[in-house]
Amino acid sequence: MIQLTRRYQFSASHRLHSADLSEAENERIFGKCNNPYGHGHNYEVEVTVKGEVDRATGCVVNLSDLDTLVGEQVVGPFDHRNLNEEIAEFQHLVPTTENLGMVIDRRLREAWPRVFPGAAPKLERVRILETPRNIFEI
Amino acid sequence: MIQLTRRYQFSASHRLHSADLSEAENERIFGKCNNPYGHGHNYEVEVTVKGEVDRATGCVVNLSDLDTLVGEQVVGPFDHRNLNEEIAEFQHLVPTTENLGMVIDRRLREAWPRVFPGAAPKLERVRILETPRNIFEI
Amino acid sequence: MIQLTRRYQFSASHRLHSADLSEAENERIFGKCNNPYGHGHNYEVEVTVKGEVDRATGCVVNLSDLDTLVGEQVVGPFDHRNLNEEIAEFQHLVPTTENLGMVIDRRLREAWPRVFPGAAPKLERVRILETPRNIFEI
Amino acid sequence: MIQLTRRYQFSASHRLHSADLSEAENERIFGKCNNPYGHGHNYEVEVTVKGEVDRATGCVVNLSDLDTLVGEQVVGPFDHRNLNEEIAEFQHLVPTTENLGMVIDRRLREAWPRVFPGAAPKLERVRILETPRNIFEI
Amino acid sequence: MIQLTRRYQFSASHRLHSADLSEAENERIFGKCNNPYGHGHNYEVEVTVKGEVDRATGCVVNLSDLDTLVGEQVVGPFDHRNLNEEIAEFQHLVPTTENLGMVIDRRLREAWPRVFPGAAPKLERVRILETPRNIFEI
Amino acid sequence: MIQLTRRYQFSASHRLHSADLSEAENERIFGKCNNPYGHGHNYEVEVTVKGEVDRATGCVVNLSDLDTLVGEQVVGPFDHRNLNEEIAEFQHLVPTTENLGMVIDRRLREAWPRVFPGAAPKLERVRILETPRNIFEI
Repeated sequence: MIQLTRRYQFSASHRLHSADLSEAENERIFGKCNNPYGHGHNYEVEVTVKGEVDRATGCVVNLSDLDTLVGEQVVGPFDHRNLNEEIAEFQHLVPTTENLGMVIDRRLREAWPRVFPGAAPKLERVRILETPRNIFEI
Repeated sequence: MIQLTRRYQFSASHRLHSADLSEAENERIFGKCNNPYGHGHNYEVEVTVKGEVDRATGCVVNLSDLDTLVGEQVVGPFDHRNLNEEIAEFQHLVPTTENLGMVIDRRLREAWPRVFPGAAPKLERVRILETPRNIFEI
Repeated sequence: MIQLTRRYQFSASHRLHSADLSEAENERIFGKCNNPYGHGHNYEVEVTVKGEVDRATGCVVNLSDLDTLVGEQVVGPFDHRNLNEEIAEFQHLVPTTENLGMVIDRRLREAWPRVFPGAAPKLERVRILETPRNIFEI
Repeated sequence: MIQLTRRYQFSASHRLHSADLSEAENERIFGKCNNPYGHGHNYEVEVTVKGEVDRATGCVVNLSDLDTLVGEQVVGPFDHRNLNEEIAEFQHLVPTTENLGMVIDRRLREAWPRVFPGAAPKLERVRILETPRNIFEI
Repeated sequence: MIQLTRRYQFSASHRLHSADLSEAENERIFGKCNNPYGHGHNYEVEVTVKGEVDRATGCVVNLSDLDTLVGEQVVGPFDHRNLNEEIAEFQHLVPTTENLGMVIDRRLREAWPRVFPGAAPKLERVRILETPRNIFEI
Repeated sequence: MIQLTRRYQFSASHRLHSADLSEAENERIFGKCNNPYGHGHNYEVEVTVKGEVDRATGCVVNLSDLDTLVGEQVVGPFDHRNLNEEIAEFQHLVPTTENLGMVIDRRLREAWPRVFPGAAPKLERVRILETPRNIFEI
């Protein structure tokens, strides 16, 4: 068994604000991230795949299939987007990087069996970097 | 003479859209950067100072003064902000990273003599990284 | 459950020398690190926190609390210090990066419950980079 | 118990081509990596060692021994080499980075007990980066 | 006037060997880089463009045009290639990174006026990194 | 003409303290860098060489000669050393990174003609990074 981690990048904006909290609480908890006009980041996503190395090809996964999947589920819909305004999951969910990572993880897990059925490599882990200092692992 | 380059970081959102262009032109020129809801980046700013090394202190510039200046003029006002909505200069200027770099350069040059008067070190150069792949030098 | 890893930085000096070893052994084992005048590094510390994402805030941990804790226990006392001369734990312990990592881990674990009591996020792991080539995980 | 990860670097060339596949399959699966003249990479190898910290030395492993071992088994034989033409294991094995990582892992595990016998630190993990975007863990 | 530097990446193999030198000289001068089977690198190319910022678009250059040009002249022909065997310029020229940088510079300068005619931005500088430690500027 | 920049690394400790200043001034100007026990850094030095590419070898400089020179003048004497206590130049000079860069520049310029006489490549520039955020160019 071997693991491949492949890195992807997208740039997006967001605002941290929860409908379940009062204005004062939102401001206290999220501070400058609660700024009503939003801000943004260059996010890096690391997708880790685990499987056996195919004897004939010497590969653990078809990279082109992986890129297509991550492109369709993550980079395509999220790149150069406002997470609050344009992503369905964040209509009722604060787009913290914790939640963003979990949304990416769920999207990839749901689409995975269609692209990699049966004994194919498994999705082992999703990590997301908000900045080089803040790294989240689902 | 010696040069010191010090790096700063801020995260902000923007939308590329010019009032001087038609909707079709805006879309053709800016592509996904024209998305009306905006997107964002982790910007890195490199401020280069040039001067003589002080014989007693062995320093070219007082770093604490430099940090205060860049904090007041750049990181403070721009971090976790929407450049289009919250920065005066971008009310009538497209917030491309080219223009953002020139605004930062102008702000630092205007405030410079108040903090570093007379024979003090000069502001040599401003560079700004939009992503690790796109670097602008004013 | 989700993990957040946050990176911190400090610069310090040390000398590798063990009172339990002869001069010859100290020199043989530590080589140039045994230099009596010491040397130094820019250390990077990665603190990994594990917990559930709070439904209201979308966060796994209050970053400001985490920064305060790491600042008080690690960055404050260690930054711009000589580990051998100024840190209590290294009065009778060689300040290798292995031991430095274990001291940081112990300090954070002891202070943790005061800042993050009860069902709060757990300290999952401490890592420390001596140089980009030498990485220690406790 | 503590883990040390140490990074090594070598540059090599390879061609992805499997004798078990037809020309058409080779081309379809490996694409531009199947180019008969080969191409190359700057590979980075991370070797992770796990063990107890020695009370006298404060070290988990003798770095000079580790460097000698990795130099003899990996960096020496692979640096500035053509993996297909000059490395015994790749005479009948496609030199994908998956297989390269497994060859490195096997070489280190076989030589390990000669250098680190008995209760010495264990080889915990080998990772190899083909590019900063593609990371393999054995 | 402003400068934009944009980074590109390609992986290729080469062998340092000069037909103007004897075997002994080739071996003495190029050492392990003279290995007849070749080796390879992940090259990074930085293309710096200089020009005025367009008042309407706020841009110094159309990035899509620049990417097309660099793709056609450099990344397309060089990526996953053997420089000695597959690139016309290196049939009678040693493919050191010095010469590789000059070939890239010449290709871009020759094609430049077709893509960026007249008052358009100028090609200011080409840099190429063979490894993170070895950087060449033309 | 072409430029080659090659990067070197060393780790050292220092204390910022000037005999020309009072204790109070030393403390005010250097702050925590004035700590009597010192601290340290992983320094990175970039040496830039400028010259013509040799027609036969395709190289601007013999890297092995350059490495020997920088090893003898900089990395050898400075690595794992205390700059204040062990380096002649800092007996009467504050070892700020500004002064450290100038000392390195002077050492390399003085030794240069012995290694690279006549029409050989010139030493174009020395840069030194104290941390990734603080970069000095002589």
